Amino acid sequence: MKFKQSLKDKYFFKCINCGKEYAFDQVKYLCPSCVKSNDAATPPKGVLKILYHYKNIISGHSDILHLKEYLRQRDFIDLLPIRTSESLPNLKIGKTPLYKTDTLDSIKLPFTILLKDDSQNPTFSFKDRASQIVSAYAKENQIDIIVAASTGNAGSSLAGICAAQNQKAIIIVPANAPKAKLVQIVMYGARIIPVDGTYDKAFDLSIEATEHFGWYNRNTAYNPLTIEGKKTVSFELYCQTNEILPDRIFVPVGDGVIISGVYKGFEDLMMLGLIEEMPVIVAVQAQGSSNLISNINADTFKASPSKTFADSISVDIPRNFYMAKDYLDKYNGEGITVSDNEIRNASVILGRNTGIFAEPAASAAFAGLLKYKDQDILKSGSVNAVLLTGSGLKDLNACQPVINIPKAIMPEIAEIEKLIISTSNFSKV
Amino acid sequence: MKFKQSLKDKYFFKCINCGKEYAFDQVKYLCPSCVKSNDAATPPKGVLKILYHYKNIISGHSDILHLKEYLRQRDFIDLLPIRTSESLPNLKIGKTPLYKTDTLDSIKLPFTILLKDDSQNPTFSFKDRASQIVSAYAKENQIDIIVAASTGNAGSSLAGICAAQNQKAIIIVPANAPKAKLVQIVMYGARIIPVDGTYDKAFDLSIEATEHFGWYNRNTAYNPLTIEGKKTVSFELYCQTNEILPDRIFVPVGDGVIISGVYKGFEDLMMLGLIEEMPVIVAVQAQGSSNLISNINADTFKASPSKTFADSISVDIPRNFYMAKDYLDKYNGEGITVSDNEIRNASVILGRNTGIFAEPAASAAFAGLLKYKDQDILKSGSVNAVLLTGSGLKDLNACQPVINIPKAIMPEIAEIEKLIISTSNFSKV
Repeated sequence: MKFKQSLKDKYFFKCINCGKEYAFDQVKYLCPSCVKSNDAATPPKGVLKILYHYKNIISGHSDILHLKEYLRQRDFIDLLPIRTSESLPNLKIGKTPLYKTDTLDSIKLPFTILLKDDSQNPTFSFKDRASQIVSAYAKENQIDIIVAASTGNAGSSLAGICAAQNQKAIIIVPANAPKAKLVQIVMYGARIIPVDGTYDKAFDLSIEATEHFGWYNRNTAYNPLTIEGKKTVSFELYCQTNEILPDRIFVPVGDGVIISGVYKGFEDLMMLGLIEEMPVIVAVQAQGSSNLISNINADTFKASPSKTFADSISVDIPRNFYMAKDYLDKYNGEGITVSDNEIRNASVILGRNTGIFAEPAASAAFAGLLKYKDQDILKSGSVNAVLLTGSGLKDLNACQPVINIPKAIMPEIAEIEKLIISTSNFSKV
Repeated sequence: MKFKQSLKDKYFFKCINCGKEYAFDQVKYLCPSCVKSNDAATPPKGVLKILYHYKNIISGHSDILHLKEYLRQRDFIDLLPIRTSESLPNLKIGKTPLYKTDTLDSIKLPFTILLKDDSQNPTFSFKDRASQIVSAYAKENQIDIIVAASTGNAGSSLAGICAAQNQKAIIIVPANAPKAKLVQIVMYGARIIPVDGTYDKAFDLSIEATEHFGWYNRNTAYNPLTIEGKKTVSFELYCQTNEILPDRIFVPVGDGVIISGVYKGFEDLMMLGLIEEMPVIVAVQAQGSSNLISNINADTFKASPSKTFADSISVDIPRNFYMAKDYLDKYNGEGITVSDNEIRNASVILGRNTGIFAEPAASAAFAGLLKYKDQDILKSGSVNAVLLTGSGLKDLNACQPVINIPKAIMPEIAEIEKLIISTSNFSKV
């Protein structure tokens, strides 16, 4: 079923806070009613969720088998807020590998681990899933310039996708963002605007600029289309596991957008009658940046300043707090925090066991699984997926504390022997 | 057709220099006759080529359509020097996207460009294609430890693949190798041995260690299996272009191993009667490291010291010189050199037009295509492929000279306006 003519019959918006509904063309970003009451000290209200006219989708397919087969072909256009897949960039986004293992350091585990390797995206992170939908929407609406506030993956992702789409990307970054992260953005030909101030300042300025210049804004927990891109990972998990979903899925959490995307994908599948139960989603946060988990049962939101080396999940005020909380509450989600040390160790364990070199945020999700394992929570025979959101090459400095490179030796066999014997962990080589 | 029992009926070796043939289990590395005459000042002789009993392969398929369909499924085991695909790592290696474009900076080109994006490999480079075969061979022969001399991609690739295969990787590196390149190797749990000296010293020591410790050696232009892994890119091109091969294929060249792999893949297809003509392969070298191109018609080999920032193709003595020369001679290959500036510009043009962020070596291949274009060599209607061998994230420092990040502004709209108006290239944003 193609909705080339009528997006109206395809989807609408619903405010996550006040519940008000809007037609597909009535709003673009936050709920106009809720946005007024927002302040800087608490998570923004008025984030919009996109809901589909699911009955139309179902009736567009001859039967449930046809619908399943449609999804299996990995063209999810019926469930995306754009007119046609021809608006998507000419890049292979998503369709990332899912690896299975049941052994760690040669020890057989009683459960199965599934690793969803989203470093295998054009700009080497999960964020491409969101950027592609924002970019496609812009294309369908003759918008040429897209702006985003970012310090890392989201900015480089938007820059890369816009390059492929012949669109202009403007990335507003806090001036103290690590230069390495900016290189990729610039190499895609995007325009960088460094601002004196924090990420929050950059975020606010990007919204002002959106209003002032008429640019289109990609910020997550602001532009509701980003969730719709991120949810595609759940559709893929559904297909790649032959419709037998994992028992638990470990997801790294900062702002709460990716985890909302994961939930949203499965919720769509529920609405279509394709799955009956929601898997248990585990929100994994860094101990030094756990404002989502620590506030989820609180009466009033209280933020602690974040401090973790895993900078893509380092967040003071989780901008998608209310949607993530709703999902976690509704579907009995779980939460766990992991220390920076646990994250670093997890990245080492992941790398040496699987050949996957993951960025700190992704390693945090894996650290969450390891912690569950150590606490004997993972049942025998269970299947546990981990969402690996990006490549370790994105943040090489983060590895320094666990990297130990021996002193140079003379190029002689005897020296190799000495080095190997002198090093206690040779058995682990 | 599966050769689980008999590798003997599957393939044999032939020395690229003396032409002597060896059964699959008679030799492992270089031709024993030719190796004796090798010296340090000229390319090594005795590199072995693997030849298949092509008739057996053909007769193993009911007809040519069946053989084509077999290749289309991307299981190339009939044409690989291993027993079974079950020996390969549990990672998605190869099967990388091929992108098509006919526009650059909004100008429609009279020809088509195909971009083979091999950054989309588990360790983010083309080298995984070779590592997987070496690792699979080791697995089938109960070898646990694999050694390689490397300063970059080959080492991190072997490390990653060995991690996935529960094998031990030992990477011997020159002590002055850039630390960033070593991080990935260590994160995969490989053992690093830095040596006082050049890459050549590391190479020689790795071979000594191979003999002394009984480790298995992955060095290219030494272990003949690496070419067999690299050739899979040609099989994929054959499938992805629906058997209508590009007119030209631009390949970055240092040692001459990748280009030999590309040729070898097509030669296999010729031997199977699947293609009739060899596409024109263009060897692209850095101007500061063009010892392959500059010696190809020389009576005696003479090396100039190499100097280019594209370090994965920076080579004094091309170790696979004779095989690459043979191929280029036999199939009327072409050669072109590009300056470091041209490489850098090419990486910028590639990034801003396609959303592909490529390492310098890969950008060199693209620079070759741009130079052909500027010289009006590319015919109207022609199809020209570029082999993009790795991710730009592998060498962020290489981008510094082309990166221009403006000074931080105050977070105000007026400041954005000033910044944009003051910058001449806003139209290109």
